[in-house]
Amino acid sequence: MAGSSLGTIFKLVTFGESHGDCIGGIIEGLPPNQKINLLAIQNELNKRKPGQSEISSSRKESDKVELLSGIFDGYSTGTPIGFIIRNKDVKSGDYSHLKNTFRPSHADLTYQKKYGIRDHRGGGRSSARETACRVVAGAIAKQVLNQIGISFITYVDQIGDLQLKKVITVTKEEIEKNSCRCPDKELAAEMEELILNVKSKGDTIGGCIQGIINGVPIGLGEPVFDKLNAELGKAMLSINAVKGFEIGSGFKAASMKGSEHNDLINQDFTTKSNNSGGIQGGISNGMPICFRVAFKPVATLMQNQKSVTKDGKEQILEGKGRHDPCVVPRAVPIVEAMAAIVILDLYLRQKAISI
Amino acid sequence: MAGSSLGTIFKLVTFGESHGDCIGGIIEGLPPNQKINLLAIQNELNKRKPGQSEISSSRKESDKVELLSGIFDGYSTGTPIGFIIRNKDVKSGDYSHLKNTFRPSHADLTYQKKYGIRDHRGGGRSSARETACRVVAGAIAKQVLNQIGISFITYVDQIGDLQLKKVITVTKEEIEKNSCRCPDKELAAEMEELILNVKSKGDTIGGCIQGIINGVPIGLGEPVFDKLNAELGKAMLSINAVKGFEIGSGFKAASMKGSEHNDLINQDFTTKSNNSGGIQGGISNGMPICFRVAFKPVATLMQNQKSVTKDGKEQILEGKGRHDPCVVPRAVPIVEAMAAIVILDLYLRQKAISI
Amino acid sequence: MAGSSLGTIFKLVTFGESHGDCIGGIIEGLPPNQKINLLAIQNELNKRKPGQSEISSSRKESDKVELLSGIFDGYSTGTPIGFIIRNKDVKSGDYSHLKNTFRPSHADLTYQKKYGIRDHRGGGRSSARETACRVVAGAIAKQVLNQIGISFITYVDQIGDLQLKKVITVTKEEIEKNSCRCPDKELAAEMEELILNVKSKGDTIGGCIQGIINGVPIGLGEPVFDKLNAELGKAMLSINAVKGFEIGSGFKAASMKGSEHNDLINQDFTTKSNNSGGIQGGISNGMPICFRVAFKPVATLMQNQKSVTKDGKEQILEGKGRHDPCVVPRAVPIVEAMAAIVILDLYLRQKAISI
Amino acid sequence: MAGSSLGTIFKLVTFGESHGDCIGGIIEGLPPNQKINLLAIQNELNKRKPGQSEISSSRKESDKVELLSGIFDGYSTGTPIGFIIRNKDVKSGDYSHLKNTFRPSHADLTYQKKYGIRDHRGGGRSSARETACRVVAGAIAKQVLNQIGISFITYVDQIGDLQLKKVITVTKEEIEKNSCRCPDKELAAEMEELILNVKSKGDTIGGCIQGIINGVPIGLGEPVFDKLNAELGKAMLSINAVKGFEIGSGFKAASMKGSEHNDLINQDFTTKSNNSGGIQGGISNGMPICFRVAFKPVATLMQNQKSVTKDGKEQILEGKGRHDPCVVPRAVPIVEAMAAIVILDLYLRQKAISI
Repeated sequence: MAGSSLGTIFKLVTFGESHGDCIGGIIEGLPPNQKINLLAIQNELNKRKPGQSEISSSRKESDKVELLSGIFDGYSTGTPIGFIIRNKDVKSGDYSHLKNTFRPSHADLTYQKKYGIRDHRGGGRSSARETACRVVAGAIAKQVLNQIGISFITYVDQIGDLQLKKVITVTKEEIEKNSCRCPDKELAAEMEELILNVKSKGDTIGGCIQGIINGVPIGLGEPVFDKLNAELGKAMLSINAVKGFEIGSGFKAASMKGSEHNDLINQDFTTKSNNSGGIQGGISNGMPICFRVAFKPVATLMQNQKSVTKDGKEQILEGKGRHDPCVVPRAVPIVEAMAAIVILDLYLRQKAISI
Repeated sequence: MAGSSLGTIFKLVTFGESHGDCIGGIIEGLPPNQKINLLAIQNELNKRKPGQSEISSSRKESDKVELLSGIFDGYSTGTPIGFIIRNKDVKSGDYSHLKNTFRPSHADLTYQKKYGIRDHRGGGRSSARETACRVVAGAIAKQVLNQIGISFITYVDQIGDLQLKKVITVTKEEIEKNSCRCPDKELAAEMEELILNVKSKGDTIGGCIQGIINGVPIGLGEPVFDKLNAELGKAMLSINAVKGFEIGSGFKAASMKGSEHNDLINQDFTTKSNNSGGIQGGISNGMPICFRVAFKPVATLMQNQKSVTKDGKEQILEGKGRHDPCVVPRAVPIVEAMAAIVILDLYLRQKAISI
Repeated sequence: MAGSSLGTIFKLVTFGESHGDCIGGIIEGLPPNQKINLLAIQNELNKRKPGQSEISSSRKESDKVELLSGIFDGYSTGTPIGFIIRNKDVKSGDYSHLKNTFRPSHADLTYQKKYGIRDHRGGGRSSARETACRVVAGAIAKQVLNQIGISFITYVDQIGDLQLKKVITVTKEEIEKNSCRCPDKELAAEMEELILNVKSKGDTIGGCIQGIINGVPIGLGEPVFDKLNAELGKAMLSINAVKGFEIGSGFKAASMKGSEHNDLINQDFTTKSNNSGGIQGGISNGMPICFRVAFKPVATLMQNQKSVTKDGKEQILEGKGRHDPCVVPRAVPIVEAMAAIVILDLYLRQKAISI
Repeated sequence: MAGSSLGTIFKLVTFGESHGDCIGGIIEGLPPNQKINLLAIQNELNKRKPGQSEISSSRKESDKVELLSGIFDGYSTGTPIGFIIRNKDVKSGDYSHLKNTFRPSHADLTYQKKYGIRDHRGGGRSSARETACRVVAGAIAKQVLNQIGISFITYVDQIGDLQLKKVITVTKEEIEKNSCRCPDKELAAEMEELILNVKSKGDTIGGCIQGIINGVPIGLGEPVFDKLNAELGKAMLSINAVKGFEIGSGFKAASMKGSEHNDLINQDFTTKSNNSGGIQGGISNGMPICFRVAFKPVATLMQNQKSVTKDGKEQILEGKGRHDPCVVPRAVPIVEAMAAIVILDLYLRQKAISI
């Protein structure tokens, strides 16, 4: 399977199944002499890990990352960073009923038909557990980018029908103050209530995440196919459960007129509005890069559902195991990690065109 | 500039500026012994070219493709296909006023700052003229895919606030019956009226395109980063003026519950609903692949706009030249071409995992 | 650092320094449902590991590979295989004298200047220890290739001036019968004597390895840049200490005439001679693929040598540590592994051109 | 066919058959604002083209390159450069006898079996005519590299058994003074005589080319798989008729002792000898990069040869057409072009690791 690699210069390759010994990856292309803060990486992993609050899965994973190479006396050496995260709280027995069953809206059927074989335990390779590896690479990318003035704000702006309306200035601290990672305190409380309500019925719910990248210099993004928005979109759409991506004005642009949509340019080359979402012609224009990502509701329900076996027989799938009623708050660090990976890669690609 | 290449096995590289001698490309990885119908390629180009109707630019381009290699006695030989499309109706004088000016929501500023130099004539490399090359590669990909039962339906489903509501069975013939490429005749008439109205005011308008891919076998798409939806999303987001992409339920998924969203599986492994849009875990599940693409309104207006020169001085930009009031109908063959390129590439990647 | 990845479909990425916790890698693109024999992998690693005989380094490494993913019930699942090999017998103290010294004909200077930082212990990333990861990937590739009738014969054909002259039929068993891995018993004894003699003087010696690949079907190799010989050559030249590569007639071809060199074709499409080394126009022609690889003598001597510090000061480098007087016999499994990786990758690339 | 692309940042993709309309390519990743001297490119093509002297093919090709994009007012814009070279002196009738015949030591059989179809005229895609495209890209790369102090010396050092022995200082002017491109005037005269003698018998002869790259800064080359020597070796082995590649001491290293082979380091970090050929651990060390490439004799003879048809029937192949008795002098600009492409690509890759 090709497909487990991302990036051109700053590259991540991941491996690992949900219920194997460990998951892990290799990061290639990290510039040398970068100070690596292990604690900051672990901190990002902690934001993603299950068992953080009542609204997430009760699976207990320490998600402790072990960096195996590429760092010497606390600094990157320019050689690849190998890393692993052990799978600790594995209850594979929970999944024995899935060996021959295809769960609705899961990847069971498609993996089985694609490969003719699959590790059915906990979703195997298709489990969102793989995204922990992305968080490691993203946390490292962010450390490098922060030093050159690029920073990330990522938060939940929709759960179900509850959508953030007010334009507000958001800080990273504000976002982390509630379990929903929504910067509007009152809306966050409503969202939490909605999620608990949905959970109590054995159901799940979707949502949206807003990402903002500040401080990106003008010039990142490689026309014509590797436009910044195209690379960012691919990265987001590769996250489990993502169903949509929009940049700047997004789908609203479809009903707008050019005279409304155009971002008039100021004399300092900033723009008066930012419908472009910080990108013109696929290249960053120095304005904040703004994007939005839609997540479907988790497919595993704590309800009985009709399903089908490998042999095409009907089967009732009982709702059991430890799952999230809403995955969106835990997806915030994943979205941010993917954004950081894309930006660092394009930053380094831009370096490569200068003599 | 890296960035002008797309694909892993079936690869397209393009070159060319809007006002140079020609644009063109190289297609690598086309399987040998495929019958190539030149007329069918030209037919797709004709759907994209300007000057088709009152609602498109009056620029006259024959957009005649010349295939230069890789074909022998009408069949592909397995070697690269080089091709060019000459630029005929070039009026570079029209653009002399743009030499030192950055147009709002165009790529003038970003190209200038990225490269320190740009061909300003007709947008140079950032012009959507480049997409003609994609249409050539897509038309060839479609010929191959049609033979193995994969077909494409692509149409306009929104212009401004006018959106297709009824679920209807659509044929390719129906779509081509009106200049808007909308399969609902009455809505198409309204759309045309809207576009002409907008045009009469020197303004422009956005819209959305719906794509449906039928007959895709189970198993295409490479987890984890090169998921079918991620590759498709990247391809669409690399098209000029695209602001959003969604697969299956898309942004609607955010407000849905798992019990509504899950696609229950039938005994023949089809699903009762198709919120997944034909893709689960990044891999095709045999159901139609359904996606939607949002386009912003064209940035060039036939109105005066405030702009800024290279030196940061304010300047009034006069509305002139030959431009589209709405680019969405002409984008239909581009969207379809990109879909075909992605599917053929993933089809061939799937071949590469079998011994 | 890009550069730690190899292959297009069957891909290997490696990480790790000589004196870190472990080295390891990720194998992508292995077809699913392949039976994986762990013992056979370990067996190949044992052929490479130090401490096998008097003519190799006395460093003791168990070189036990741990496969971490991608295998289920003994079969490959099509997902990436992550693996690690722990560094056991690490005596980093041995290397403290090298912290600020650049050893002659080692990579100390070049790593320091390239990255501005380096892990000096045991050569760090530049150590040939990294090749153990290649042996793992190669051993897996060989298991797959053996099943489709492709097999490998690799042996030492030159140490110093002692070169194998007679054309003999060689078996894998014969090669493993002596510590030099030379199929001519008497020559092997002479080689061993030469190596021990050189060792007794604190010196080292170079040599050549011959590789033969049998059973390769006609049609592997991708013209024009990824010719089979080009890919094979790159793979071999990426092995530490390799100075030359030749295919078929090799450098002898330079003094031959066309009428001598041409391989006349038999009616069954085999050829009467094999100066082409099994490759024509970069594509396998069904004849055995024959190549030869030259290794320089190990740069670490057990003699005092003049060296230079980071600050450009002269320094006498004492000969100490545990090193090989001749690395060529231990390089046999590495050469074979690289050949297997290249052939499997091209085999899968060929699959990708068929509809 | 994947395989027609070379490079990571500075990329070349080529297309075209010997007897089609034209051959051509696309160069991606050329840094912007580089002055492009068209005459200098043509000059390199002229060194490669047939019909230069009595010792080369009498085929008359003007080999005039047309640059189609990526250049504005004489400077590169950072966008891809498309180019074509028309095929003028095409006598496809000369090849009709080859439609169903496989010539010995040509790629006829292997192309036919790989693809199931081939353009037999003039060797089609397998013709060395394709290398003209490499010369274009190499000439552009050299213009960029010359500006940063990197220069290339490339010459014939062996034809048949006539080998250059004396170490001499060589200038580019000296090399071009004779039709053999050998810097030793007297040896060149002997070589020419040898070639004419071989030609008079309808036979052909092989040879070797020496390449020297001066001024390469320390630090180019990406360990571990993309070592400078590995990339250079692959590039050379992808040239038609190449059978061997060696770096620095090359195959001689096999019979050397470490105490002889080690390049002792001076206090200014140059080395006293250069057995490493300017590369240590795959990374340039600032010394001249020295390599040698072996070419087989041309396979097309002006003699009758036994051959086989598609159906496995014996056939006498008559010696006719216009061919080179020795291709080595004409290969000098090709070797130099490939070296330049590799060095510029690695130079830009090194840029991409700096923050």
